[in-house]
Amino acid sequence: MLLESLRQQVLEANQEIARRGLAPHTFGNASGIERSGGDALVAIKPSGVDYATLSAADLVVTDLEGRVVEGALRPSSDLDTHTLLYREFPEIGGIVHTHSEFATAWAQAGREIPCLGTTHADYFHGPVPVTEPLTAEEVRDGYVRSTGAVIVRRFREGGLSPAAVPGVLVAGHAPFAWGRTPAEAVEHADVLEYIARLAYRSVLLAAPEGGIPAYVREHHYLRKHGPKATYGQGGGT
Amino acid sequence: MLLESLRQQVLEANQEIARRGLAPHTFGNASGIERSGGDALVAIKPSGVDYATLSAADLVVTDLEGRVVEGALRPSSDLDTHTLLYREFPEIGGIVHTHSEFATAWAQAGREIPCLGTTHADYFHGPVPVTEPLTAEEVRDGYVRSTGAVIVRRFREGGLSPAAVPGVLVAGHAPFAWGRTPAEAVEHADVLEYIARLAYRSVLLAAPEGGIPAYVREHHYLRKHGPKATYGQGGGT
Amino acid sequence: MLLESLRQQVLEANQEIARRGLAPHTFGNASGIERSGGDALVAIKPSGVDYATLSAADLVVTDLEGRVVEGALRPSSDLDTHTLLYREFPEIGGIVHTHSEFATAWAQAGREIPCLGTTHADYFHGPVPVTEPLTAEEVRDGYVRSTGAVIVRRFREGGLSPAAVPGVLVAGHAPFAWGRTPAEAVEHADVLEYIARLAYRSVLLAAPEGGIPAYVREHHYLRKHGPKATYGQGGGT
Amino acid sequence: MLLESLRQQVLEANQEIARRGLAPHTFGNASGIERSGGDALVAIKPSGVDYATLSAADLVVTDLEGRVVEGALRPSSDLDTHTLLYREFPEIGGIVHTHSEFATAWAQAGREIPCLGTTHADYFHGPVPVTEPLTAEEVRDGYVRSTGAVIVRRFREGGLSPAAVPGVLVAGHAPFAWGRTPAEAVEHADVLEYIARLAYRSVLLAAPEGGIPAYVREHHYLRKHGPKATYGQGGGT
Repeated sequence: MLLESLRQQVLEANQEIARRGLAPHTFGNASGIERSGGDALVAIKPSGVDYATLSAADLVVTDLEGRVVEGALRPSSDLDTHTLLYREFPEIGGIVHTHSEFATAWAQAGREIPCLGTTHADYFHGPVPVTEPLTAEEVRDGYVRSTGAVIVRRFREGGLSPAAVPGVLVAGHAPFAWGRTPAEAVEHADVLEYIARLAYRSVLLAAPEGGIPAYVREHHYLRKHGPKATYGQGGGT
Repeated sequence: MLLESLRQQVLEANQEIARRGLAPHTFGNASGIERSGGDALVAIKPSGVDYATLSAADLVVTDLEGRVVEGALRPSSDLDTHTLLYREFPEIGGIVHTHSEFATAWAQAGREIPCLGTTHADYFHGPVPVTEPLTAEEVRDGYVRSTGAVIVRRFREGGLSPAAVPGVLVAGHAPFAWGRTPAEAVEHADVLEYIARLAYRSVLLAAPEGGIPAYVREHHYLRKHGPKATYGQGGGT
Repeated sequence: MLLESLRQQVLEANQEIARRGLAPHTFGNASGIERSGGDALVAIKPSGVDYATLSAADLVVTDLEGRVVEGALRPSSDLDTHTLLYREFPEIGGIVHTHSEFATAWAQAGREIPCLGTTHADYFHGPVPVTEPLTAEEVRDGYVRSTGAVIVRRFREGGLSPAAVPGVLVAGHAPFAWGRTPAEAVEHADVLEYIARLAYRSVLLAAPEGGIPAYVREHHYLRKHGPKATYGQGGGT
Repeated sequence: MLLESLRQQVLEANQEIARRGLAPHTFGNASGIERSGGDALVAIKPSGVDYATLSAADLVVTDLEGRVVEGALRPSSDLDTHTLLYREFPEIGGIVHTHSEFATAWAQAGREIPCLGTTHADYFHGPVPVTEPLTAEEVRDGYVRSTGAVIVRRFREGGLSPAAVPGVLVAGHAPFAWGRTPAEAVEHADVLEYIARLAYRSVLLAAPEGGIPAYVREHHYLRKHGPKATYGQGGGT
């Protein structure tokens, strides 16, 4: 079996999004990528399979174009979004898609999540962006691939870095989050849900539209991510 | 004992709505129907019995007119709604009634749930409809039977298909959901609660009234339900 | 030890309000009354004791004036409200006071809970009333006794029956609920919290101010409480 | 190992904030101070360590200037806020910082929590204050130390007593709470979250801006804290 270590990481990421309540029913999937060696290979959840019974052997392995390399089951219906993001965002190693409650509510409202506090600023550099709705042509040409395309366009046009902004809301749909590993993608999906929850309540309490001052945002983001990071037990790199 | 297999399915459906938190106290009931053989028979929860102690033998079996065929207990007080729906919607095999929190809140507000995202569009073809309030005459003529009647009228007048719209909100009351089996009815009741929850939050975040574009709605509904369904491990039927 | 059976019921009622999440911290208490025999006796939770360690022997027994008849601990600081309600509402046998989340939010907003649906109508005949705020004089003359007095005044002036309206919101404070037994008082406190939760969400969804039509309210209340009650397995009494 | 008893109290306080759901991820920390003996010593959670694996030996001991006296790990990145509060508020013995959901939502909205009911009045004498946002200079001069400084300034300028007002919201950030011991600080952080939750819902229900009358506020605060306290089993001191 190919990619035993990656399969294990992707299995745990899928189980973890269910365990954390981010993916009620089977509304969610996690994948990971192995970029070393020759051609990159992606491991992803099969479509519509219950998290409780999922095994590492059930995962589907595809190439970067989404062609199945190993696996008896049909891959997640969101595969084309995952592979496009892996092609366009070479710095990411894991992707998590959920329909988690508060992040999805923002996505359905078509609103980006403003940066209203340091919980947000510690993880996302600026607002959590929201895509444009897909056009009728994009839906016709392939809904799932186009979902990836509107995400990439939002990042390109906004000058956003996938490393500094580890997630996005797809308008009228739900969030995607990513990280250097599948486990980090889960962490970012979970934090995204928490900041969506905090911002929802703050907005209903009439939080100032502009959010926290830029100098606070920068300080918080950099204390966790810059060369002078001071948080945690790791070195400052 | 009649209908052992159906009783077991209905028992599990009743236990499941309690387990998923859809029916606090005894605010809820599930039924199923056996249409093969001669006359159709309905198995339903007895009235006011705790889910924890319910057994398959406690279920009440009635005919399509609600006459008890087997069972020592009084059937659910909502029986007449169930039997009317089974008579009028021949494609359904199970019905679940709950007072689940967010769906009931929409029903109490007398508002249909707009289709604001793909989570909704995957399961309901268009908004989740809400009935008209019962008139004084309808209440006097039989509250429970009239509840079924306003549901059927809403579907007839709206040109809605019970297969494509597997649930409804009864104004000032609570939701009903259905499916081909009791288990599918539970699944639809649970999804209905989740989309009610998402839509509630999106509306408070000022989601656009019109919801997602029709071409996205159609795409999502058809990817799970049409002849070209691409979701899950089943064939495209 | 006096009143072993009543002590056991009151102990279980206190444990149950904690178990159901109605009384975070020690914000809550339950009592019961024995009216048969000579003078009536009340058993109530001691003040500030944790539910987890509470025993039947810890409960304090007082007379209807609140004089301790048996018990080493100080009674709940809300005792004077309980005894006043027992004196004025002779039909009740148990009282539960909580600071449960949604009912308390309505009490803090100084708003009665409108009857917006059948979940409410099945248990409360009309809105859940809210008292007037206590005046400065009433606070000075005894906050706890005056709390009972404003409840009684609200019922007297509104022509409300404690049997048909088994609970109340004290403005700027929290709910009280009651029943024929301590267990029924718990049930009513729990239902009150659920209907407060439903109404909160419906009001944010712009539910009609007037609530459901009177003819639906009457039908639902009477199907559970009138001489022709049709709900549950009991007779129609 | 220094301060075994204090370490144990601080360990339990850190575990408790995780157990009560006040600190999702590692967004939170608790500390305690030993003021007897010569120089005061502070025990605090190390930075970024998971609550599940934390041991008493992992805690970091520092002096009142934040210099590490014992401990192999890096102290919480919030250390400078803790030490400043211990220097300025000599009556406190434990501090808890969380990003608990509702208190953080108020902090992000930049709003103090009005005193809308007796649950609040029993613990906080007046509104839960919110600080000014940090200025660009304060962020540059040391974000964490300045966080302590804006808290102290808010109390000085508002004439607030840390004993009567056992917590604060830092604008755009999150709450801090304190008490005579680490355990009391946890209790206050938990109550703060609950009153933030109640007030959020009451405000959405259009609670009166002014909150409860001052004479009710005073009565409730003094029944728990004044020389004539009547709550609980302790004497009136």
